[in-house]
Amino acid sequence: MGRKYAIGIDLGGTNMRVALITGDGEIVKKIKGPTPEDLPAAIFAAIESLYSEEIAGIGLGVAGLMNGEKDRVLNSPNLHIVEKVDLVNGIRNKFKVPVFLENDANAAALGELWTGAGKDFSSFVFFTLGTGIGGGIVCDGKLLDVAAEIGHMSIHADGEKCPCGNSGCLESYASMRAILSRAFSDLESGRESLLRDYCGGNFYKLTTEEIYRAALDGDTLARELLKNAGRYLGIGIANMMNIMSPEAVILAGGLTGAWDIYVQEAIKEASKRAYAEVFERVKVIPSLLMDDAGITGAARLVFRAMSEQYS
Amino acid sequence: MGRKYAIGIDLGGTNMRVALITGDGEIVKKIKGPTPEDLPAAIFAAIESLYSEEIAGIGLGVAGLMNGEKDRVLNSPNLHIVEKVDLVNGIRNKFKVPVFLENDANAAALGELWTGAGKDFSSFVFFTLGTGIGGGIVCDGKLLDVAAEIGHMSIHADGEKCPCGNSGCLESYASMRAILSRAFSDLESGRESLLRDYCGGNFYKLTTEEIYRAALDGDTLARELLKNAGRYLGIGIANMMNIMSPEAVILAGGLTGAWDIYVQEAIKEASKRAYAEVFERVKVIPSLLMDDAGITGAARLVFRAMSEQYS
Repeated sequence: MGRKYAIGIDLGGTNMRVALITGDGEIVKKIKGPTPEDLPAAIFAAIESLYSEEIAGIGLGVAGLMNGEKDRVLNSPNLHIVEKVDLVNGIRNKFKVPVFLENDANAAALGELWTGAGKDFSSFVFFTLGTGIGGGIVCDGKLLDVAAEIGHMSIHADGEKCPCGNSGCLESYASMRAILSRAFSDLESGRESLLRDYCGGNFYKLTTEEIYRAALDGDTLARELLKNAGRYLGIGIANMMNIMSPEAVILAGGLTGAWDIYVQEAIKEASKRAYAEVFERVKVIPSLLMDDAGITGAARLVFRAMSEQYS
Repeated sequence: MGRKYAIGIDLGGTNMRVALITGDGEIVKKIKGPTPEDLPAAIFAAIESLYSEEIAGIGLGVAGLMNGEKDRVLNSPNLHIVEKVDLVNGIRNKFKVPVFLENDANAAALGELWTGAGKDFSSFVFFTLGTGIGGGIVCDGKLLDVAAEIGHMSIHADGEKCPCGNSGCLESYASMRAILSRAFSDLESGRESLLRDYCGGNFYKLTTEEIYRAALDGDTLARELLKNAGRYLGIGIANMMNIMSPEAVILAGGLTGAWDIYVQEAIKEASKRAYAEVFERVKVIPSLLMDDAGITGAARLVFRAMSEQYS
């Protein structure tokens, strides 16, 4: 019967997903929930519940910067626990199968390349637009083994200081966190907006979904917030177009829900800034796998290593 | 005897170089001079003078953006003539050997990878720091087939409008042209400086070499100009480090002559901005081939295609 499944694990800052996945990228069974306090124990339990003799290996996509050997997370601003725990060797020792580690956005890009929005392109730049901004780069049909920390590209030389150490990071202007933080300060300063009526008047509980809803209802502030962030995203997209001249730009993450305002504004801005000859051949499209891109790509790490071994 | 040489051609905005190069990257004979008015005729004559039955092919590195098929230059702001002439087919038809085209900075990066400062690295980002700023990216031992227009990455969202269409391009802050343009406006506004005594008092004839010399002589304005440009270069370098996490950053072009002020400032700025874990493993080093990187890489295009064909 052989080992025909992989377990794919996606550990973002807020959610954990663990899935049993076939060699064709089909998700057979999925466990999901908020990232638990006792992370190693929860991961072990989730693997245990999906484990069988048919598991070829386990892949992990984890938020943060990996070491060169791809067995440790060096720096994970939103998930510090993974910096201290040796997950790869812990899992390998317990389950006795090959274990692979990748940055979560890189893993998601690999998932899109395998069975998602990227499968018909030989090159694309992948953006995850959530609380923060992450990325992955595919070139010549392969995921590049690079940090791809696109959210920490400075687009504003003397702009806002970012916790990463840089100033003017794309993430500080175009992410969910950036949009909410600007919303709070605008509302604090007394701007009129429908947003005041949301969340029982406690605007600190606002979400970007609600801002999008208010924008569709014609709220000026909400529209401004999304268009402004979208314009900055467009600068980041144009930069990546001029550098990587990809066939596609694939956008994933919660903010793609605000496509008609936020992403449309980004495309408009990128069209003004990127080389015309590059822009006109790039497709800007949404992720196909959405929240499943990470687990799919994590499983792909396992099958990719198997196919490299036998080729 | 076989076809053991290639002809490598480097067409920048101001200079043309044509060389006969061995399969080991050794330059046997070299022709150089300012880019002539009648470019196609001059290129044909130069090839003719180096041509023999031992030529395996001809490689061209040309300033500008190439098409996907790599046989035409779509856009070359500093060398418009090449947009209108079909050099590849013209040369192919006349000399009946394989002809290859690449962006000049990409070709130079390939030269460094083959026999230059990049030959011991499997990944690096290459910057050409001249009148403008160009780039090339090597990953997993290969030159990436991407535009690598690093000079046209915006690092200043609402900064200076660039002729390329973007605003706040790295090139507008850190190139020779940027340094000179700032020098002119500072001198026009009456700033005191040793630079006034250069070029017989006509400061519009200043060069960046002279600015570097004045800076070494303690001139405040000259130091400021180089440090300011270097700081912006550092932002561009940090961005490329966070995106590509390369083993090395290789710097070429005339401005590397101002290494002790301009590049040192860039390294200092990049050290503050790039992820610490990435920065500490990157070497920032000068080009080894310097002005010969372009012809070397152009010749490499020929030998690379031959080795791919037989592998």
